[in-house]
Amino acid sequence: MPYQRLNQIEFNHCDPAGIVFYPRYFEMVNSVVENFFADVVGRSFAQMHLGQGNGVPTVRIEAEFVAPSRLGEKVFFTLEIVKLGGASAEFSIRARLGEEERMRLRLTLVWIEGGRAAPWPEEMRARMVTFMEEAA
Amino acid sequence: MPYQRLNQIEFNHCDPAGIVFYPRYFEMVNSVVENFFADVVGRSFAQMHLGQGNGVPTVRIEAEFVAPSRLGEKVFFTLEIVKLGGASAEFSIRARLGEEERMRLRLTLVWIEGGRAAPWPEEMRARMVTFMEEAA
Amino acid sequence: MPYQRLNQIEFNHCDPAGIVFYPRYFEMVNSVVENFFADVVGRSFAQMHLGQGNGVPTVRIEAEFVAPSRLGEKVFFTLEIVKLGGASAEFSIRARLGEEERMRLRLTLVWIEGGRAAPWPEEMRARMVTFMEEAA
Amino acid sequence: MPYQRLNQIEFNHCDPAGIVFYPRYFEMVNSVVENFFADVVGRSFAQMHLGQGNGVPTVRIEAEFVAPSRLGEKVFFTLEIVKLGGASAEFSIRARLGEEERMRLRLTLVWIEGGRAAPWPEEMRARMVTFMEEAA
Repeated sequence: MPYQRLNQIEFNHCDPAGIVFYPRYFEMVNSVVENFFADVVGRSFAQMHLGQGNGVPTVRIEAEFVAPSRLGEKVFFTLEIVKLGGASAEFSIRARLGEEERMRLRLTLVWIEGGRAAPWPEEMRARMVTFMEEAA
Repeated sequence: MPYQRLNQIEFNHCDPAGIVFYPRYFEMVNSVVENFFADVVGRSFAQMHLGQGNGVPTVRIEAEFVAPSRLGEKVFFTLEIVKLGGASAEFSIRARLGEEERMRLRLTLVWIEGGRAAPWPEEMRARMVTFMEEAA
Repeated sequence: MPYQRLNQIEFNHCDPAGIVFYPRYFEMVNSVVENFFADVVGRSFAQMHLGQGNGVPTVRIEAEFVAPSRLGEKVFFTLEIVKLGGASAEFSIRARLGEEERMRLRLTLVWIEGGRAAPWPEEMRARMVTFMEEAA
Repeated sequence: MPYQRLNQIEFNHCDPAGIVFYPRYFEMVNSVVENFFADVVGRSFAQMHLGQGNGVPTVRIEAEFVAPSRLGEKVFFTLEIVKLGGASAEFSIRARLGEEERMRLRLTLVWIEGGRAAPWPEEMRARMVTFMEEAA
């Protein structure tokens, strides 16, 4: 089963056309990724950033905005790991309302230690592998 | 009892010092107000804005940032109505973590119909009066 | 020559690592596109959105974040039209500091009239064609 | 003469009513303050934050949103120092379009060294005093 989050579309997210302004989608996507790391991978962004100079910066994104999302809607986000690299991970993230797809994207991020890409710590990798197996 | 919302401080809210960038507090405050109108006053922002040219723009804010909030914290927001005017309302909104106060503010907004301030619709007023009585 | 804009990286754009939070890059990209439409295509976003229900929503983005941008830097954005479709346009947008590339992306947007994709108005198309010819 | 900045109201700043969403005003205000420190006080936010754990967090704001600002407008911001304290400063910031006032606010910030309020460094104080004298 993919990781799941519900996001309510609020005033803050919407543009003069009353629909989500796409940079706000990426704020929601980052929140989904952030919660995934805390809930599933066992490492919160606070632990990463306030601690030892770690982080998971996004290096690549490919997104399609299939249909607009509107103020007041509750949009369902799912996250799956598509590919787990030595120092990187590629996610597939989708947003839907009921059966209707709103956005789908591929996002690649890398694990950083002391300012440069580094191999995933064993415990983080193990949890991501388990997540992938359970999702399969 | 005041209206309550829990906000998790996420990456998106934080500045290079690792604490909430104050304009993001106002995004959270607006979300609290927005949810209050949907949950308590019976009128969502979507109904207001996508419908008949209504809205509740903020006209005045007075805020004190008492102590910083940090990435990963779950901050508790409360909202009370301080004063209900003919076409306006003044709210007291506070953010706390446990016993520690983080932010307190007074916010005045007005009810708009067709682009100008107008008396609160009777049903909205009645619900706000009930909320104030129950909070007292 | 491509269309050009200089963006100063301000506090507002930066995350707890002191670098641009990637959703803020997309805010800058949207600003570049918005100014391009006003300056080159002769149609501001205000004219589009406050007028006749027009707009140019983004439907696809592919971005690579090549190197981080830091607080205080002045980053140079360029925009080129890669492909002009009947009701769409694909842009190449790059951000650089001196010779160092920071971000490159491809972005596709569509012209909307009355809520649906429609052929570019002749005058807008003519200006974009001229821009492409001059850039070649 | 007060310190001055021109801000163009862009799509990114506007809400479903087509006017500036008030938290975005505070982003603009923070940008005005940030540029004031770099241009007038001789200390950029980059120097403060990436260097020795300095900063100028906002501790108090009082704002009135007098009239809405709309997509496409170029709004003129002015900043004056109202009061220079030992470790703090109070600013008056106003936004106008021509003669029409849009927003006025009072903002208090404090100088931080190593996580706590500290006296202004002499050079910063001297520059602010000069600015106040020239503005008088």
